[in-house]
Amino acid sequence: MAAKLKTAVLGATGYSGLELARILSRHPRTASPLLLRRTAETDPESAEPRKKSATASAASPPISGNGHAHVEPFSWSTLKQHGVELLFLATPHAVSRELVPDAISRGLCVVDLSGAWRLKQEEHRAIYRFKDADVKTAAELTERAVYGLPELNAGQIKSSTLVANPGCYATSVILALAPLLFAGLVDLNRGIISDSKSGVSGAGKEPTARTHFVSVADNFSAYSVFGHRHTGEILEQLALDSSQFIFTPHLLPIPRGILSTIYVYLKRKMTAAKIQSCLQDFYAGKKWVRVFPASTLPEIQFSVHTNYCDIGFSLADDGRRLILVSCLDNLLKGAAGQAVQNMNLMYGWDEAEGLQ
Amino acid sequence: MAAKLKTAVLGATGYSGLELARILSRHPRTASPLLLRRTAETDPESAEPRKKSATASAASPPISGNGHAHVEPFSWSTLKQHGVELLFLATPHAVSRELVPDAISRGLCVVDLSGAWRLKQEEHRAIYRFKDADVKTAAELTERAVYGLPELNAGQIKSSTLVANPGCYATSVILALAPLLFAGLVDLNRGIISDSKSGVSGAGKEPTARTHFVSVADNFSAYSVFGHRHTGEILEQLALDSSQFIFTPHLLPIPRGILSTIYVYLKRKMTAAKIQSCLQDFYAGKKWVRVFPASTLPEIQFSVHTNYCDIGFSLADDGRRLILVSCLDNLLKGAAGQAVQNMNLMYGWDEAEGLQ
Amino acid sequence: MAAKLKTAVLGATGYSGLELARILSRHPRTASPLLLRRTAETDPESAEPRKKSATASAASPPISGNGHAHVEPFSWSTLKQHGVELLFLATPHAVSRELVPDAISRGLCVVDLSGAWRLKQEEHRAIYRFKDADVKTAAELTERAVYGLPELNAGQIKSSTLVANPGCYATSVILALAPLLFAGLVDLNRGIISDSKSGVSGAGKEPTARTHFVSVADNFSAYSVFGHRHTGEILEQLALDSSQFIFTPHLLPIPRGILSTIYVYLKRKMTAAKIQSCLQDFYAGKKWVRVFPASTLPEIQFSVHTNYCDIGFSLADDGRRLILVSCLDNLLKGAAGQAVQNMNLMYGWDEAEGLQ
Amino acid sequence: MAAKLKTAVLGATGYSGLELARILSRHPRTASPLLLRRTAETDPESAEPRKKSATASAASPPISGNGHAHVEPFSWSTLKQHGVELLFLATPHAVSRELVPDAISRGLCVVDLSGAWRLKQEEHRAIYRFKDADVKTAAELTERAVYGLPELNAGQIKSSTLVANPGCYATSVILALAPLLFAGLVDLNRGIISDSKSGVSGAGKEPTARTHFVSVADNFSAYSVFGHRHTGEILEQLALDSSQFIFTPHLLPIPRGILSTIYVYLKRKMTAAKIQSCLQDFYAGKKWVRVFPASTLPEIQFSVHTNYCDIGFSLADDGRRLILVSCLDNLLKGAAGQAVQNMNLMYGWDEAEGLQ
Repeated sequence: MAAKLKTAVLGATGYSGLELARILSRHPRTASPLLLRRTAETDPESAEPRKKSATASAASPPISGNGHAHVEPFSWSTLKQHGVELLFLATPHAVSRELVPDAISRGLCVVDLSGAWRLKQEEHRAIYRFKDADVKTAAELTERAVYGLPELNAGQIKSSTLVANPGCYATSVILALAPLLFAGLVDLNRGIISDSKSGVSGAGKEPTARTHFVSVADNFSAYSVFGHRHTGEILEQLALDSSQFIFTPHLLPIPRGILSTIYVYLKRKMTAAKIQSCLQDFYAGKKWVRVFPASTLPEIQFSVHTNYCDIGFSLADDGRRLILVSCLDNLLKGAAGQAVQNMNLMYGWDEAEGLQ
Repeated sequence: MAAKLKTAVLGATGYSGLELARILSRHPRTASPLLLRRTAETDPESAEPRKKSATASAASPPISGNGHAHVEPFSWSTLKQHGVELLFLATPHAVSRELVPDAISRGLCVVDLSGAWRLKQEEHRAIYRFKDADVKTAAELTERAVYGLPELNAGQIKSSTLVANPGCYATSVILALAPLLFAGLVDLNRGIISDSKSGVSGAGKEPTARTHFVSVADNFSAYSVFGHRHTGEILEQLALDSSQFIFTPHLLPIPRGILSTIYVYLKRKMTAAKIQSCLQDFYAGKKWVRVFPASTLPEIQFSVHTNYCDIGFSLADDGRRLILVSCLDNLLKGAAGQAVQNMNLMYGWDEAEGLQ
Repeated sequence: MAAKLKTAVLGATGYSGLELARILSRHPRTASPLLLRRTAETDPESAEPRKKSATASAASPPISGNGHAHVEPFSWSTLKQHGVELLFLATPHAVSRELVPDAISRGLCVVDLSGAWRLKQEEHRAIYRFKDADVKTAAELTERAVYGLPELNAGQIKSSTLVANPGCYATSVILALAPLLFAGLVDLNRGIISDSKSGVSGAGKEPTARTHFVSVADNFSAYSVFGHRHTGEILEQLALDSSQFIFTPHLLPIPRGILSTIYVYLKRKMTAAKIQSCLQDFYAGKKWVRVFPASTLPEIQFSVHTNYCDIGFSLADDGRRLILVSCLDNLLKGAAGQAVQNMNLMYGWDEAEGLQ
Repeated sequence: MAAKLKTAVLGATGYSGLELARILSRHPRTASPLLLRRTAETDPESAEPRKKSATASAASPPISGNGHAHVEPFSWSTLKQHGVELLFLATPHAVSRELVPDAISRGLCVVDLSGAWRLKQEEHRAIYRFKDADVKTAAELTERAVYGLPELNAGQIKSSTLVANPGCYATSVILALAPLLFAGLVDLNRGIISDSKSGVSGAGKEPTARTHFVSVADNFSAYSVFGHRHTGEILEQLALDSSQFIFTPHLLPIPRGILSTIYVYLKRKMTAAKIQSCLQDFYAGKKWVRVFPASTLPEIQFSVHTNYCDIGFSLADDGRRLILVSCLDNLLKGAAGQAVQNMNLMYGWDEAEGLQ
């Protein structure tokens, strides 16, 4: 039997980092992951580093002897000392943007969960205001980085050393739209709208007025209207123009899960059976996308705590107006689960390994 | 000082009925309302009447001496005996459809909270499958009934004896769209979409698999896609064709509140200031609609437990793509509060009386 | 008609402060309250004052013309300029401890919502670690301050100029226990236990890891076991020894409301009817306490959004083991509502004025 | 490798049944379980059988090809035909009471999740009002049945063919109290109190007024005070007299999880270290109980979605008053997980098999 892969997770105390730690510690092909937290040096955004808890504690009880892992401060020498081969970055995009050039030059493989390396087009990248120390290397890596949506880009992912793991919202929107768009069935002149809703863990672990329980409970609101960062990924992956697509995120009073309600006008009248075939054929053999029967729509509960993206649809009587609904767990298929799915592809393993 | 108006609430144990009872019992112009529950005779849908609790108990503690009102079985003689002048029907539409002809012929004024008398066009009414005993009278009353949205129809409401109180979703959608549509600013060829979300009290008090706590909590789902009953009201009030409008309701894991995210394409490029003026001018002097500044969007918490409908918007950089967001409390501006607002108009009182 | 009382609320952007602002702005006896926020000078705990929003915005929409009040920075001259007679302090205890001597010396009446002036006994006060600038004045005021629980101390409150508004937990526990304890029915040798549960607004508006939505939702936990600050108030008001009483607070995943389950052993066998009489007689004529019939227990929903404290009980078959359950809204009867009830008493008005 | 065990789950559409189906379908030692639903014949309580959905659908999406299992109507011949060896009953107690004698006489092993076979003493059983067709056999089986709490009764469970799986509340209370009680450290004269709180799935899947989302959300309440069925189990397993123990269940507004706050007076003054040793020694080598360090208390989130029972404690300064807090997932360690743990013992497998 082959030696187990040595991995590290930087940002192991955040929500996605915790899920990664949990999955990797049970994955049959990986050794127990090295868990790391950011330090002042790794955190270009904060002059004074915030104190981070030194244990992966969020939902883990503070007791020893039960898989309660220690989280160490990040340094390249620690990575080297542990023989790490694959580095997962569950870090803010500015941190990822800074660390990846070093990581790649040191021969590490990287799966980055931030938005740092997802975008090829400058116009979409502008919103992140990257400050690259070495502009040329950054440009080269931007070109090399593969957008890690396995159902679309498996071939490239397999041979990549730098995978940019997609955004949670973006995954739910792209997977729902790709089959119909790529088949040329959508009337782009009428525009596509994704009205998306996410649980609060998508907003991160930092306590803010916005994530305070009393602000969220019994409430619901839209945010980042006409300006959410995930819009660029969606446009790039689906080859859409910004005038053809509206994306509106909303905050749901639940801990986790995303549902996107997507409005599409078809070029010509179609039957539900045809839509169904289009979706099913596209995802034939894809383990982590479930296509629902016509008019049976996914709900958030169906996919939470799994790596599935569920896709359903309803077609109007006129055969032209189509509503797609897609659901996923923002921390799994929308983050850590998909990152492991990418790792599985990168190392030639079954895409489902460790994700059941 | 004038004698206080004598009112009755049929369906006083449901969510809207309870709110009506609460508001009317404190309203300065009305006597303590007569609270009534349905009996086998008033309930054409159930051969065998369900046992209803004999007290308006939902959120009221079961104690005497603190406004804990008795709920009596409905009969016309009880109404007469109490000298009731205005009857609120918080009943299923089939019950309202059956009782209203009798109520009107007995000289009562009626505010009906169901969908029984809201629709003028047969095509929209079909979904309700009304079985009118006296088809001619039903047709006459259908014609006479006034759609009780005070911000649009105050004049008619003032002289009406039969007011059809709007649906909760419909109120949120119509109020957001009316100013722009009536000003002719919307490109109807591109279609209007309302992606609406409601708390669970909108689904009524009947315990079902769908309203079970475990089904709703940590979940979110779309329902009645391309087939919700409120669609007809919206089309009629806004003079839209069914091909021009998509309405998608969703169930939020909160007790009350509605938020509608509404997508509109404008005929020509506009500024946010112009949109703002259009909305503010339309609702100038209207106490119960609050127009928000550009890009400041209402949230459900702002209007819950009030009679306000809050309206905000965000305009894309292209000045053509517009998102309207409207919020209200489905049991107040979406039901009982609006019913009292209609009563205030019918009797010539200030629209805000009893609703602060 | 008498001139309206001029009041001010310091800490008007916190949860209790917002409720006070809301109640006072509709109270028939008070002018529109002056809303104030803390500044660096008023905040002995923070060297650098946190930026506070300049509007009472929590649940108020950010729009003008609808009662959206401006919040001004605190200063004594502002108070004087507005002719303020009564000052409500919705401030941390250290701030209240510092400001009250000045306020009293300037001839203001004060209702303080913090724990600064509730305790007479040094042993109970120690937990707050007060740093009094003028020890003698502080001691005098500590003596003069009246514990503002109207159902117990109405007489003293009426003639007081410094009322220490009780803690939310303490109110729920003291009101449930006082009738039986004062009647000498409780076997103190066996000990009294209050297992209490509170919604999250009780923990204040400051965003912390503890109040993050993802930490609270789907969770439940005990905290401050054997060490909660409200314990001292309960002991003092009920004349209990610390060995006779255990108080355990828990955090409920709801925005507001407290339920205390209180375990008592009776000295001798009693009937439910006797318990009921004891409670009802004690609270005869007390508007804001509702005593439930035997074995009918209050729930949090019954009293939330009201100023009621609801009390119920269940007696074991042996007639000796008694469980009391009391509920209230921590921001109303547990804070702002009770503060207004105290004001009503201080100015000789009906206890219920402005609280319906 | 040995042939896989053939199991069946009756009641596979309920919450516990669904969890059992999920665990067994992935258990390395069991074949895919036969999923069964009750029929009119198996349901002594209902003259007319309620329509049950024919798929294990609660949280499973209604799609084929993804482990969406068919649920068949129960019959003995179906069991025989599939060669079932072990039958899990996730059924109401009256159904279990009726079916078990037949099942045992047909040579099946049974793990019953209801209260039908948990109690040896007639006084505790009375509350269930069993109507045994064959009184003698029922009495024999009552005697033979083993209370399936593995941490206490592993020896008996290993050789049993009829295991009565404990109640969810009872598991949380017994596991917390057993170490101290069995060590003789508790002052029984002062009484033990368990103030327990459970999520809504503990109330079952039947939609009722009590489980309606609007009744539960933003609410909290006590129920079955001095009369909950689990009290008998706790008394029997801990050899307590009913006068020595009070058990008060409450309904939490969360889908799943139990927290019990347990109040104990110690016979003599002790240190936290001694309490800790007592608990740790008792559970040494017990995989599914986690003992927390002194004053570090478990929260519901720590154990939900796991088979752990977490136990923590806090000791008062006097060394006599002790608060124990225990948490578990009511559907796993409180039901389906524990049932599988019992199966593992019955068949000589590792207790943790299939439960990671």
